[in-house]
Order: sequence, then structure tokens, then C-alpha cells
Amino acid sequence: MFMGASTKQGHEIATKSREIVQSLIKDKVKNLSSQEKDIVERIVHSTADPEYADLIAISSNFIKAILKSLKAKEDILTDINMVKSGITQYDGNVECFIKNKETIAITKEATKATTTKEKEKKITRAAAAIQYAADNDFEGIIAIGNAPTALYKAIELKEKGELNVKAIVGVPVGFVGAANSKEALQKTDIPNIITKGPKGGTPVAVAIVNSLIQTINNKD
Amino acid sequence: MFMGASTKQGHEIATKSREIVQSLIKDKVKNLSSQEKDIVERIVHSTADPEYADLIAISSNFIKAILKSLKAKEDILTDINMVKSGITQYDGNVECFIKNKETIAITKEATKATTTKEKEKKITRAAAAIQYAADNDFEGIIAIGNAPTALYKAIELKEKGELNVKAIVGVPVGFVGAANSKEALQKTDIPNIITKGPKGGTPVAVAIVNSLIQTINNKD
Repeated sequence: MFMGASTKQGHEIATKSREIVQSLIKDKVKNLSSQEKDIVERIVHSTADPEYADLIAISSNFIKAILKSLKAKEDILTDINMVKSGITQYDGNVECFIKNKETIAITKEATKATTTKEKEKKITRAAAAIQYAADNDFEGIIAIGNAPTALYKAIELKEKGELNVKAIVGVPVGFVGAANSKEALQKTDIPNIITKGPKGGTPVAVAIVNSLIQTINNKD
Repeated sequence: MFMGASTKQGHEIATKSREIVQSLIKDKVKNLSSQEKDIVERIVHSTADPEYADLIAISSNFIKAILKSLKAKEDILTDINMVKSGITQYDGNVECFIKNKETIAITKEATKATTTKEKEKKITRAAAAIQYAADNDFEGIIAIGNAPTALYKAIELKEKGELNVKAIVGVPVGFVGAANSKEALQKTDIPNIITKGPKGGTPVAVAIVNSLIQTINNKD
């Protein structure tokens, strides 16, 4: 299994693509570690967008922390089901709680708020899903490919000591809140990888996680 | 429900994002129909990548054909499960056969080929999944967000009269084969939407399909 290919034909396509990607971005990744280089190449392969080589920022404590968590088969929590669907080769659990009835209940409870203080607690369902995970003793990695609100909630809960997250793949996408949420993540001590600016999304989150899972699986 | 938002907070974010997108690409979409404009805006919203406004090409028979199929609740077939996961508001079936045992069997059978003629039949699992759908009387829409090989297979089977596809969302991504497969689709009579060049992917396929489903649902 290489870069998601499951047949010889698929493997040949993936290999050729990787060579093209390497020729496109080789100057931009030359100072990265092999794992970091693998991640950036896989993102560009998955998106066909070389600009990502300029947008990725990886905290110095990220690779070690996330590999340790993956090797221990700790849970991976995703903000949306699309991200979960793309992580297909992991021996541990991949979870997404956005459609759980308890998550929907958290969102509805917040909607009933009447005072200003209570209104501040109003949250999106993606953020409620992170709250639900924290309430249920989640321990592991969080991968955010869509919702800045989920990323802000993860940062808030980690800083309060209420969320046992070992590393965050923080690549929400969009023109509203995404860039700021990623800057907020970079200011924390949480091991993290982000994409600067509005870009990011499901394929980016999936490429990062799958690249690291492949690192682990190849070493087994 | 607007652009995937399920809460008031989410709705506000989606609305603000849409306004930013409109300001970024308004000159590029001014000659499009309202449905076409919705599609392009939603893609840019989902990817935070305004370049897509230059890359989308829609055949003149696409909108009418796909809306008719969606209104009839015909099946939507996706090449990979990530695309299926993103289509959450459709009243009809959304299918993906890439992990079916019959699909895996088609791929394995092709791998046994020994003669040159037989070797030509070697296929990826994504292509085998389209073959499986055709073999089982699929009728409806095909949305390809990843694999050029799946798109080529859909075109081939449609032209042989073996696949009853009403419209193709053809936005495979990558540096190997994706651009050519989309050009091949444009040369057919199949109602289609594509992204020119290597770019495309799951969020693009999902944005297109969900935009059209929203058009249908708003009219109900």
C-alpha cells in the first residue's frame, strides 16, 4: 500500500505523481525532515496544488508527539465525517461525533441561552462534537479539516485541562475564522501542523494523517 | 440548512463566507446562470481557492440533466467514500462500491491477465467499482472526486451503451491522468462539469453535488 493505491496500476500512478510533485516543490522542502517532506509532498499530490508547499507550518514538537500517539494506537478524532472516511489504514479508532445525538443535544441546549453570558456558549455542531469527546475522556489526536469553531473549542478545552489531546492537525478551510483559528493554535504549546491563510480542508487533513500512518506502518 | 450549516452560528459563518466569495469572484461569474453561479461560489467557499472560478467548465446540457435526475431521486455513484460522506442531504441513494467484495474480485481477476490483450484490462479498484455499478444496472449521476481511471471507465461504458449515466461530475485531481480524463469527458455528449487542469478533488465534487441538491430542496 503506497499513498492509498491498492492495485499495481494505482501504485504506478501514485509513484509517477510523486515524482512530478517532487520536481515541482523540491527547493521548498529541502530543509525539512523526511517525515515533514513526506507530509508536504502528499498534500501537494492530493490537492494538485503546489502552493501548499508555502502554506504548511509544523511545530517543532509535532512529529515526535503525533508518531508516539499513532504508535500507541490512540484515537483519532475528526471534525467531520469526510475526514474520517479518508483515514482508512489506521489500526486504532477513528471517531467523529458530529452526528451523535449527544452532540446535537449540546448544540440545542446552547441555543436556549437567554442571558449574554449564556449566549457566549452558543456553539456550532462541530464545536459541540469536540466538547462531547472531552466530556467522554477522549485521549489522542484531533484532525480538523473543516470547522474553525471545532479548532477553537479544542484549544479552549486543552488549555483548561479538560481535553487530553496529544497533537492537532489544524487545517480548517474558509474565509471566515479559519486563518485566525490556525494562528491561535500556533500560539499554544500543543504539537500542531497548520496551513497558513484560508486554505486547507479535508484532503489536506487526510493527506497529513495518512502520511504519518504510512510512516508507522512501513516501520512495523 | 444552508451550505451545510446546521446551527444559527454555522449559518452566520456560511453567509459571511458567501459574501466574501461573491466579492472575490463576481466578475468571473456574471455571465453564468443562477445554478451555475451557486456551484462556482460553493466550490470557492469550500476550498478557499478563488482560482476555481477560472477552472470550472459546464456543458450546456448539464444543469437540466442533473436537476432532472436529482428530482427523480436517482442514485448518485461516487468514486471514493470521502465523496459519499460529504453528500448528506440527498433524499435518494448515494453509493460507492470501491470496497465491495465484488469490486475487489473484478480487480483481482484483471490482475491474473497473461496475454497482452488481457493485460489491457488491468484496472484500478476505482475503475472496477464503476464496472460493478454498470454490471448491476446503475442508473443516475456519477460524481468522481479522485480517480481519473474511474472517469475513463465511466466514459467507456457509457459510450458502449453499458452504463446508464445521466450526468457526470468529473473533477478528479492529480498530476497523472486527471487533466486528460476531464478533457476526454468534455469531448463526449454526456452532460458534465469539470475542472480544467490537475486541480479538483473531494471538496469540489461534494460542493457541486450539494449545491444542486440545495437547489432542489429549496424548491420543494
